[in-house]
Amino acid sequence: MAQDQIRELLEQVRAGQLDIDAALKKLQWPGVAEIDFATVDLHRRQRCGFPEIIFCEGKTSEWVAGVVRELVAAGQDCLATRVSEEQSAYLAKVFPQAEQDRLARTFWLPASSERETVGKVSIITAGTSDLPVAQEAYVTARVLGTNASLIVDVGVAGIHRLLRHYDRFTESDVIVVVAGMDGALPSVVGGLVDCPVIAVPTSIGYGAAFSGVAPLLTMLNACSANVLVVNIDNGFKAGYVAALIARRHGGKRT
Amino acid sequence: MAQDQIRELLEQVRAGQLDIDAALKKLQWPGVAEIDFATVDLHRRQRCGFPEIIFCEGKTSEWVAGVVRELVAAGQDCLATRVSEEQSAYLAKVFPQAEQDRLARTFWLPASSERETVGKVSIITAGTSDLPVAQEAYVTARVLGTNASLIVDVGVAGIHRLLRHYDRFTESDVIVVVAGMDGALPSVVGGLVDCPVIAVPTSIGYGAAFSGVAPLLTMLNACSANVLVVNIDNGFKAGYVAALIARRHGGKRT
Amino acid sequence: MAQDQIRELLEQVRAGQLDIDAALKKLQWPGVAEIDFATVDLHRRQRCGFPEIIFCEGKTSEWVAGVVRELVAAGQDCLATRVSEEQSAYLAKVFPQAEQDRLARTFWLPASSERETVGKVSIITAGTSDLPVAQEAYVTARVLGTNASLIVDVGVAGIHRLLRHYDRFTESDVIVVVAGMDGALPSVVGGLVDCPVIAVPTSIGYGAAFSGVAPLLTMLNACSANVLVVNIDNGFKAGYVAALIARRHGGKRT
Amino acid sequence: MAQDQIRELLEQVRAGQLDIDAALKKLQWPGVAEIDFATVDLHRRQRCGFPEIIFCEGKTSEWVAGVVRELVAAGQDCLATRVSEEQSAYLAKVFPQAEQDRLARTFWLPASSERETVGKVSIITAGTSDLPVAQEAYVTARVLGTNASLIVDVGVAGIHRLLRHYDRFTESDVIVVVAGMDGALPSVVGGLVDCPVIAVPTSIGYGAAFSGVAPLLTMLNACSANVLVVNIDNGFKAGYVAALIARRHGGKRT
Amino acid sequence: MAQDQIRELLEQVRAGQLDIDAALKKLQWPGVAEIDFATVDLHRRQRCGFPEIIFCEGKTSEWVAGVVRELVAAGQDCLATRVSEEQSAYLAKVFPQAEQDRLARTFWLPASSERETVGKVSIITAGTSDLPVAQEAYVTARVLGTNASLIVDVGVAGIHRLLRHYDRFTESDVIVVVAGMDGALPSVVGGLVDCPVIAVPTSIGYGAAFSGVAPLLTMLNACSANVLVVNIDNGFKAGYVAALIARRHGGKRT
Amino acid sequence: MAQDQIRELLEQVRAGQLDIDAALKKLQWPGVAEIDFATVDLHRRQRCGFPEIIFCEGKTSEWVAGVVRELVAAGQDCLATRVSEEQSAYLAKVFPQAEQDRLARTFWLPASSERETVGKVSIITAGTSDLPVAQEAYVTARVLGTNASLIVDVGVAGIHRLLRHYDRFTESDVIVVVAGMDGALPSVVGGLVDCPVIAVPTSIGYGAAFSGVAPLLTMLNACSANVLVVNIDNGFKAGYVAALIARRHGGKRT
Amino acid sequence: MAQDQIRELLEQVRAGQLDIDAALKKLQWPGVAEIDFATVDLHRRQRCGFPEIIFCEGKTSEWVAGVVRELVAAGQDCLATRVSEEQSAYLAKVFPQAEQDRLARTFWLPASSERETVGKVSIITAGTSDLPVAQEAYVTARVLGTNASLIVDVGVAGIHRLLRHYDRFTESDVIVVVAGMDGALPSVVGGLVDCPVIAVPTSIGYGAAFSGVAPLLTMLNACSANVLVVNIDNGFKAGYVAALIARRHGGKRT
Amino acid sequence: MAQDQIRELLEQVRAGQLDIDAALKKLQWPGVAEIDFATVDLHRRQRCGFPEIIFCEGKTSEWVAGVVRELVAAGQDCLATRVSEEQSAYLAKVFPQAEQDRLARTFWLPASSERETVGKVSIITAGTSDLPVAQEAYVTARVLGTNASLIVDVGVAGIHRLLRHYDRFTESDVIVVVAGMDGALPSVVGGLVDCPVIAVPTSIGYGAAFSGVAPLLTMLNACSANVLVVNIDNGFKAGYVAALIARRHGGKRT
Repeated sequence: MAQDQIRELLEQVRAGQLDIDAALKKLQWPGVAEIDFATVDLHRRQRCGFPEIIFCEGKTSEWVAGVVRELVAAGQDCLATRVSEEQSAYLAKVFPQAEQDRLARTFWLPASSERETVGKVSIITAGTSDLPVAQEAYVTARVLGTNASLIVDVGVAGIHRLLRHYDRFTESDVIVVVAGMDGALPSVVGGLVDCPVIAVPTSIGYGAAFSGVAPLLTMLNACSANVLVVNIDNGFKAGYVAALIARRHGGKRT
Repeated sequence: MAQDQIRELLEQVRAGQLDIDAALKKLQWPGVAEIDFATVDLHRRQRCGFPEIIFCEGKTSEWVAGVVRELVAAGQDCLATRVSEEQSAYLAKVFPQAEQDRLARTFWLPASSERETVGKVSIITAGTSDLPVAQEAYVTARVLGTNASLIVDVGVAGIHRLLRHYDRFTESDVIVVVAGMDGALPSVVGGLVDCPVIAVPTSIGYGAAFSGVAPLLTMLNACSANVLVVNIDNGFKAGYVAALIARRHGGKRT
Repeated sequence: MAQDQIRELLEQVRAGQLDIDAALKKLQWPGVAEIDFATVDLHRRQRCGFPEIIFCEGKTSEWVAGVVRELVAAGQDCLATRVSEEQSAYLAKVFPQAEQDRLARTFWLPASSERETVGKVSIITAGTSDLPVAQEAYVTARVLGTNASLIVDVGVAGIHRLLRHYDRFTESDVIVVVAGMDGALPSVVGGLVDCPVIAVPTSIGYGAAFSGVAPLLTMLNACSANVLVVNIDNGFKAGYVAALIARRHGGKRT
Repeated sequence: MAQDQIRELLEQVRAGQLDIDAALKKLQWPGVAEIDFATVDLHRRQRCGFPEIIFCEGKTSEWVAGVVRELVAAGQDCLATRVSEEQSAYLAKVFPQAEQDRLARTFWLPASSERETVGKVSIITAGTSDLPVAQEAYVTARVLGTNASLIVDVGVAGIHRLLRHYDRFTESDVIVVVAGMDGALPSVVGGLVDCPVIAVPTSIGYGAAFSGVAPLLTMLNACSANVLVVNIDNGFKAGYVAALIARRHGGKRT
Repeated sequence: MAQDQIRELLEQVRAGQLDIDAALKKLQWPGVAEIDFATVDLHRRQRCGFPEIIFCEGKTSEWVAGVVRELVAAGQDCLATRVSEEQSAYLAKVFPQAEQDRLARTFWLPASSERETVGKVSIITAGTSDLPVAQEAYVTARVLGTNASLIVDVGVAGIHRLLRHYDRFTESDVIVVVAGMDGALPSVVGGLVDCPVIAVPTSIGYGAAFSGVAPLLTMLNACSANVLVVNIDNGFKAGYVAALIARRHGGKRT
Repeated sequence: MAQDQIRELLEQVRAGQLDIDAALKKLQWPGVAEIDFATVDLHRRQRCGFPEIIFCEGKTSEWVAGVVRELVAAGQDCLATRVSEEQSAYLAKVFPQAEQDRLARTFWLPASSERETVGKVSIITAGTSDLPVAQEAYVTARVLGTNASLIVDVGVAGIHRLLRHYDRFTESDVIVVVAGMDGALPSVVGGLVDCPVIAVPTSIGYGAAFSGVAPLLTMLNACSANVLVVNIDNGFKAGYVAALIARRHGGKRT
Repeated sequence: MAQDQIRELLEQVRAGQLDIDAALKKLQWPGVAEIDFATVDLHRRQRCGFPEIIFCEGKTSEWVAGVVRELVAAGQDCLATRVSEEQSAYLAKVFPQAEQDRLARTFWLPASSERETVGKVSIITAGTSDLPVAQEAYVTARVLGTNASLIVDVGVAGIHRLLRHYDRFTESDVIVVVAGMDGALPSVVGGLVDCPVIAVPTSIGYGAAFSGVAPLLTMLNACSANVLVVNIDNGFKAGYVAALIARRHGGKRT
Repeated sequence: MAQDQIRELLEQVRAGQLDIDAALKKLQWPGVAEIDFATVDLHRRQRCGFPEIIFCEGKTSEWVAGVVRELVAAGQDCLATRVSEEQSAYLAKVFPQAEQDRLARTFWLPASSERETVGKVSIITAGTSDLPVAQEAYVTARVLGTNASLIVDVGVAGIHRLLRHYDRFTESDVIVVVAGMDGALPSVVGGLVDCPVIAVPTSIGYGAAFSGVAPLLTMLNACSANVLVVNIDNGFKAGYVAALIARRHGGKRT
């Protein structure tokens, strides 16, 4: 609760316009929906600009659906990620109106169908095998209200493939680069542009890629000064922060 | 054997009340039940305050059942953890009277149905996906005779969810915090209370969580001075030691 | 601020006994001392039962002394750990009345000289080389008001050395076990007692001890159910939580 | 070279306004200064919005000074990081007019003294020991032309220290959070704000912090969706990208 | 070829008793059976005292059977380890006379049924789940001609279980200790005896056992000076070297 | 585009033989085929001497087939590696004329059936289980036009198996050594020859082989000065570079 | 205490030949010397065949000297390892009669000068840099009473250097192989002999040798079945167990 | 000894031209020089095309000088690497005629001053800090008789720096790429050329470069098919194998 709001409340108490129990309740408004297996953060939209997002791994289909219901009941957008085949089928029955993208493994049930878009996000992959992770970033950046676009399979082994998109890069507000194996692409892209680059390592590669550790380390050590990193295969977070940056640049805070 | 007991035994020998072979046997009482595939520690209850507990991974259903039988025959409580689906079904047939909790993956067959409870244990999870591990801690703390309760999904991304349980924390004798991903919750909880906090890392998260290594390291490095750590996903041990601490505080040694 | 305190404050506001600016300030009392290089937590004693403790690594002597001054000014006990030779000499000049233990690398400046002790903490080391870490635990447990005692060099290679202290173990409220190399001692001690065991890995050993990683893993995997773990060489935290547990058992919350 | 520039050049060739050797040279303008031990990237300012920055580790003082000279000769700003004591003393003699910050270990020699600032960057540290890394971020963000400010020692063990700066956070365009040990602070800060959070792990902590690996993993696994990560102790990169983001929001591309 | 043999051969050449091509062939006798997918070492029995042993992982059933056939054809004993269910079924059809132990996953087809045994090997496990690995050691030690015996489930959490076998230990020529989790048992056993102890880590345990890495490190760091280590779950090698040691002591080189 | 080509183009522009749009297009010829899920590098054959090779992991069968089609349409040879059972079956239907090797998991569809071979490549394995990786190297070296041959199962435990192929080694232009477990073979082979040795670690072995990490480290640390290393199980790359080296020696650049 | 001894004692008690307090004392004879900083195991010689050995790392010179004094007072041999320059100088003053080997970093003060030797131990190094570790093994094996000999610098890059010692190997009771870098030598030696091989990894090598981890893994994965492993640079333990094995074969238990 | 040589020897024995002891000696010619601390491989030049090279780490100056003397006495070239300051000063006194390069840390004492060079080796570094390692490769490639040249500081953050050397790359027989931090340069270079690329990771970078592990992994995972890898900072081996490849292409086996 902001200082202004507290002051107003105290003044209402003094003026007798608000009784103490009501004041106490307001000061302690939970901002949550409590169910048996979850404490849904209904206040997050206000603090962070976007509602709580559901990470589906390790949850039963029923648990996921239960949280979706609470968000819907609170009139909030609902995005879920890492939706398994089984969860997807279950949710499709319960919420047939939702958009599911099986390549990205996302579930999207907006509170309203209108959505204005601002800012440009370019999402690039080094190889074709990185596409599912890139797609998760793409879906996320779009549902957060940005103009996102994909450029696929332009890794450094054939660097001319990358350079021909140069003009598109320089128009971007932020670039997401998705790469497995050597994870070298973000360093190269970073050296070509003046906007932030968000690097996403993927778990693609031979044994010593260690399920994404090799490209993760490459990216953390990127010699270009504008490269930031997220967790292995975490297309969602890359898309999310890309949208935060692009929307700001577009003059609109989330 | 304690010194007093040895002295008494020696006096009986001198007095001719005990013959030497009987004395030798007493001095060397095994305190075990030996079966083909196990040496069951029947003396543990006396030393440690609770009988041997069966860890079911890597065992056939027959082996597990065999150890249960020896504990039952010795009139001791029997708790088994990490019970697989297959083991669970087998045990349900052989010991239909036992309580099995499939979320916690526990098997519980008490020697007697009476159980007095003392001390307060709060078990908190950062997310919904941490629930199975928390449930193992919950079941364990309860069968060891404490008043245990669960608070689910109050991770640090929405810290108001946690703070609203503040009063409950300050009444606890010990708090168990279960978290995957960043494992940041125990540090925050630790900073709010004056009792010990037992942190349990879970194997939930994206690639660089490394199946629980990331939250394990976070917890070992917790900046709050009252945070102790157990192994990844080891809800059992957290519940066990929490009960030891809570029962002592309740004036009762296990 | 507890609910009771807020209610009272609101009633004072309504009664006109407290003006709004004063109420606002109380609701937002910082509980900190701010200096250029630190935000000292003066409220910690109230929440956690003991004032903030100063970890000296990575700090200049001047920074350490600055924080000590704030704690002293607030009338609080002051414990500092990991005090280097250089810091120790500097602090000895500025605070000659403080107790410094160079084996433990601690600095202790109590607000008052009276101190009642409750509860029993036994601190055991596997080898002689583990002594500095154990001493840090010992000093910490004592300044937190418990009866702490040390048993040195009773590792599992000569297990009779351990067993002769059996009676002392069974009288302890909690046992701290400090070990490097194989880190096997906590498992053995844990199997002999019914109180919690806090295991502290040390960085002593040959190459594949990896500066304490080997005993850390051993302890996390201890087969005895009552063993909890702290960070490598972190005698301080072991002593701290041991004191929390022992004082509670002694009927006194910190 | 952009397509427009190439077209113009080709038209000049056709018109006979530009001879072929000159055209070739332009098409292949090196954009570098070559010296024995370095190939200085004089074109970087044009591509990336800021000149090449000198990373001083592993270089002799003479090599560093040689690169500084080339940048100065080209009329470009010159920032150097990780300046050792020895390098600092050497550079102070050769470039007495430069600003050196020994806490941040930076060297700064701007081409011109005027500098307009836009955008707000908040830099927060969990502890006092994290200050040198934070200072590197602070200096970097300022020389890149933003309004940067520092908040020190507000880690999660005393979370009220953090919450009292809440208003400042919500006014920031981007927040840099610097933390060692458990690295938990970025997750908490991330959950409170709607702007990007750049997390910097530091090498502060006990053994199992592994010189910054523990907080690095914590931050990669941050449960808050707006947290990005840079390399251990890399305050420079955090400050650099923070400035990129803040300047854009301020309506000004670097 | 030993020097004596070469001298004799040269003397036969000089005496004209051996022509040059025959001499060349002898000097270069291959000592192998070559098949498409293997080069079977038929000379190993002579060098190492026991024929080549077949490690079945990564081989088709046909490949395994092919190597068995070559050893049988050469009149040598044939031991195969890590036999999968599929390989076992296949081999049972082709070599119905072989002894297969499915707990140990071994295949044994001796060249002759007579076998004299010498020396005493004790094989101990910390828990019941370690039994398959111990059984592989047991089978191996026996087919190499020693008196091997098993003691199961005597881990350090109940150390009296171990101590009651003390007399048996002191009669052993060598002891194999198999343990997962904390891997503490070899250190304790080592401190009780004057013969070599071979420690075998197993992949049993919670997350931070890292599939056997934790007990492997414990054992490499064993504080008892007589403990040697083999690879994770490598019961075979432990049984093999135990037999080498025991047979020597029994006055018989393999 | 090489400098000569640019000069010629510029002269054509000046001479009016080439209009500006055509010149622009030539200067910016993409050298790629763009499809929804891939940017096929059609220019790689020209730069690197061999067309792009398809790594099939993480791709749908349709994606693989789509890239094959583009290469075929461009008249280029098509090699695919790591072809799964499912992909293999799909490709067999679509491209029945292609050669598939299921042991090597390769797909090979040459643009023309003629192929001249030069240079000698020897591929050696330490064990039979290393054969699939060696076969991948073998197929690759052959389709790149060299005389490749396989020597199987000559590991260092029976070093005479290796030494009998000595003459063959000394005739090789390059040797590929494939080994799991201890990965010791390349060091031994390296010490016997004067040509480069390419070492390929495989994921064969007991627990502490860590799926190929142990032999990878062995090979990186090979005491013989002529040993280079590729990724775990990467027979393809070993065969590829072996062919590059052997063809050069054969007087023919790829 | 063995069963026979206990029976005798009980009979003496019954016969009145031994009073109860004396009996109690005998049953609980400590077998230790307790000093402030150590619990010296005076009973180890009886259990393990050799007195306690002092590991000097992490100890002050005074602590080391104190333990030496207790062993000397008890009439036992005294071996200390890892003696630093400072400790060595201190000990030389206090115990001028002791033998110190500065290459091996050992201190040796026997209780009596007579020493009969039995059994043959060969100690081999791969390189010259491995010599200090080998020397520690050599000194240890000799003070334990075996005929030990050294063969230096016969690594696998020039395997003929090794093969010329073949006859010596086949006469050994046990072979110790000391190697850094690739650690390949034990595998090769193991394949040539029928006795146990104890492998000692050293911390010699380039970066990816990781201070001995690379050869440690190589040795744990040795393809020869007779290779056992000790910790990195632990020449002491290798020499110790080698002596145990060689003395047994020589018909004499330690 | 080759088959032809053995046949000739046997024929001489038969013809009585060679007596048996002489024949034995020839068959067993050691090819080594044995000194107390080394077994110098005098036969390596014959097998591998270049004499044994001395790795100086872990050796005393006297040991190094001793081996140099043996090589000189045998009329062989002598190259030593990783020469420390202390060793360098010592060697300069004993062998003043030798060439020492302190940046590369090499010592070079050729048997004859004539040296013909063949083949082209390009050595590239990503940054200036990689120069010492590159210099070691450069010196090595030159003393092995190739035309080696250095290109410094052309990392991927400013890729135009690299591309301007394109013509030089395409003329090389082999390229050595030296890079720390992200290690991305070899992947980019590999995609531009048709010759082998040898990648050398260096220990330069921020914390998560882990002293060269990050670029090592990047290089092992290089997406370009022609990239091979050597150990961290091992410029020597890269230069050595580069020379082997270049000399072959130049029509001359080493």
